[in-house]
Amino acid sequence: MQFKISKELLDQINNLILHNKERELHDLLSELHYADIAEIMEELDDTQASYIFSILDSEKTADVLMEIDEELREKILKRMSAKEIAEEIDELDTDDAADIIAELPQSKKEEVISELEDVEHAKDIVDLLRYDEDTAGGLMGKELVKVNENWNVLTCVKEMRLQAENVTRVHSIYVVDDDNRLKGRLSLKDLLTTSTKTPISEVYIKKVDYVRVNTSNTEVARIMQKYDLEAIPVVDEMGRLVGRITIDDIVDVIKEEADKDYQLAAGISQDVEADDSILDLTRARLPWLVLALFGGFISVEMLSLFEGAMKEHYKLFFFTPLIAAMAGNVGVQSSAIIVQGLANQSISGSILNRLLKEISLSLLNGIILASILFLGSHFLLGVEVKIGVIVTIALVSVIITASLIGTSIPLILDKFGIDPALATGPFITTSNDICGILIYFSIARMILGF
Amino acid sequence: MQFKISKELLDQINNLILHNKERELHDLLSELHYADIAEIMEELDDTQASYIFSILDSEKTADVLMEIDEELREKILKRMSAKEIAEEIDELDTDDAADIIAELPQSKKEEVISELEDVEHAKDIVDLLRYDEDTAGGLMGKELVKVNENWNVLTCVKEMRLQAENVTRVHSIYVVDDDNRLKGRLSLKDLLTTSTKTPISEVYIKKVDYVRVNTSNTEVARIMQKYDLEAIPVVDEMGRLVGRITIDDIVDVIKEEADKDYQLAAGISQDVEADDSILDLTRARLPWLVLALFGGFISVEMLSLFEGAMKEHYKLFFFTPLIAAMAGNVGVQSSAIIVQGLANQSISGSILNRLLKEISLSLLNGIILASILFLGSHFLLGVEVKIGVIVTIALVSVIITASLIGTSIPLILDKFGIDPALATGPFITTSNDICGILIYFSIARMILGF
Repeated sequence: MQFKISKELLDQINNLILHNKERELHDLLSELHYADIAEIMEELDDTQASYIFSILDSEKTADVLMEIDEELREKILKRMSAKEIAEEIDELDTDDAADIIAELPQSKKEEVISELEDVEHAKDIVDLLRYDEDTAGGLMGKELVKVNENWNVLTCVKEMRLQAENVTRVHSIYVVDDDNRLKGRLSLKDLLTTSTKTPISEVYIKKVDYVRVNTSNTEVARIMQKYDLEAIPVVDEMGRLVGRITIDDIVDVIKEEADKDYQLAAGISQDVEADDSILDLTRARLPWLVLALFGGFISVEMLSLFEGAMKEHYKLFFFTPLIAAMAGNVGVQSSAIIVQGLANQSISGSILNRLLKEISLSLLNGIILASILFLGSHFLLGVEVKIGVIVTIALVSVIITASLIGTSIPLILDKFGIDPALATGPFITTSNDICGILIYFSIARMILGF
Repeated sequence: MQFKISKELLDQINNLILHNKERELHDLLSELHYADIAEIMEELDDTQASYIFSILDSEKTADVLMEIDEELREKILKRMSAKEIAEEIDELDTDDAADIIAELPQSKKEEVISELEDVEHAKDIVDLLRYDEDTAGGLMGKELVKVNENWNVLTCVKEMRLQAENVTRVHSIYVVDDDNRLKGRLSLKDLLTTSTKTPISEVYIKKVDYVRVNTSNTEVARIMQKYDLEAIPVVDEMGRLVGRITIDDIVDVIKEEADKDYQLAAGISQDVEADDSILDLTRARLPWLVLALFGGFISVEMLSLFEGAMKEHYKLFFFTPLIAAMAGNVGVQSSAIIVQGLANQSISGSILNRLLKEISLSLLNGIILASILFLGSHFLLGVEVKIGVIVTIALVSVIITASLIGTSIPLILDKFGIDPALATGPFITTSNDICGILIYFSIARMILGF
């Protein structure tokens, strides 16, 4: 069952498209899961992908549409009329439907909404569209099963059967009062093991986790992970039950958040993938490289300041890449640990304590590395002892400084509500390069007096 | 409901411990969720944490034990007898129970197993212990609800009620044959909406996703994400149903995998957190720094080769940090995109195509950056045109080389079954530093002829 697209399968599909064998292609595709079809479509060119989409069974198209990349979806939707899009939307859960409608251009958006057949569904979607996509409101779906606290189990089961028809996965049954305010929950399991004659008020669990519509999506992810929840109800400002978030949406949030931090640490600023266009990739990579280049200009200027040392002590210049590299590496380590700690909320204690710890740590690292450097410069590189001493002292100072910069900048950004992950990658390496070189030559000047 | 540990709460708890107010402390804790208690315990010192653990209600201790850090758990388990540990284990689901037992020292392991009261539970745990923790077998739990294809719905519901008692969350009901071979599934929802008189063989869905016991945990994560599954059954080599994996375990796998890649990209080799001890942090960070230091030695040697340029063209040396930094940054970008693409399985096409794309990309980036550098070196840094030309040509060559190295090394590692994430971070920056410097001075030598 581990489906992986083989070259053979792709060739076969290409061939069937080429020879217009629609029936065979249709039969082949009808055997596949919609997620697999989406993967195949992404491997083909746009015309082929649209063709595949056009011959799919109608009950599969909506799911495939939801599964493919935003870019390909945009292209396919462009070829469809508002009515055709509305037919697909009618098949989707409200949260997915709202996500797709939100991607449409404004004029088409209204047209599609007016074409929706199921008025209740349309109302729910319009309601969802007003929430920011990075909040619980933007994540939630309207599909849920709820019962009134004043009902008895018999009414409850009857009502639930009706409601469950529209809900793909029933996680919990939520209990509300007459004003739709969330009061508690019932588990399906409890229902399975309880006599049907019991009144609801006696069986429901009053303690229920929930989030508010404006809770951020990363906070929702943290809560659902921490308390091991598979679904969480969402309430509005008045405590009324307005939606439900399921764990599969949260998996996407966690993945996106981790990918984003990783890319920032590597100096990539937008959400890009290896298969994106060269232009998209350039737009994501170039800004950081320009930043690093201007940092490089500063380092050139800095080195010019110490031109006086060139004649007598030119060997000092052989060590600049080493010092700069060590500063960069230490800085990235420190900042990465802080960024990850902030993301996982595993950082405790004050900034001062954190910095003190980082100083001890870098002293320990610095002394070990400096010993290796001192011995290495003498025995491996054959550098005179004076230079060896200067480089060694510089290395310890640079390591301590770099780790302090790496630790404090993300913490400061976080205090000001800026994403600390911005401070990893090229930003930290560039500033540490510059500081490292400055410290190194300042120490050399003090000792050698050039 | 968004619980966050406040300084006030911690102070209050500290005070209650200090003044031995056990009753008040107990009342305070009994209000809290086990995940919150675990978080509080991790903020306290070991003795305080053990004390808190000792006064918890017995129905909470097992969950708290499962929730706390491995390190703290080890300390708390050390103070407990085999019988006490067995009592906790009896409360846990088989997968969690097996994880905890696996952490115990060999001798205590056997003692604890022999003290387990529930023999069926003990058998299941022992069975789980034999699987590698990075496989589906190591992730799965034995708690599941299964019915025989030959039963009718009435028997089925009766049996299910019994089985459901032991299962926290019922996702699917699995259908097996007389030999326990997985045949299909029933959804709880279907059961809710189907008449009780229907025979099982008529209602169950024959298409069921599953994994084998030896499928790797990252592959399980990929499958569950791709097909949006909340639980997946695990079968052995003979197709017999042996366990079930739920999405919350997969969330942990995804999180760990992302954290690991992030740390490797930052040059941190073990799974450490900001709050770990200085020694643990050093052990994770030092090896990469030593690697970078030896890389630095090579760069020093390399620069010595071009000592001849020192007298007349010493300004060349001012640009080494700039060239090295650009090489490092480009390399990290390229490798990060590949590593992430491999992790998300979003890389298609051959290695050759990938490299060609990377060359076009870096030509584009390189030409833009080189123009900035050429103008900048002239107008900002006031460097003579000849040096400006050399640096500019070197920059383009270095960017292309660095991106090729950054792209190919992770791809090659992956081909050989080695974790490509190893090739990000210090490894790539160090090798690119060295290559960058070599290319830069070789071009300078060709043009200037020193």
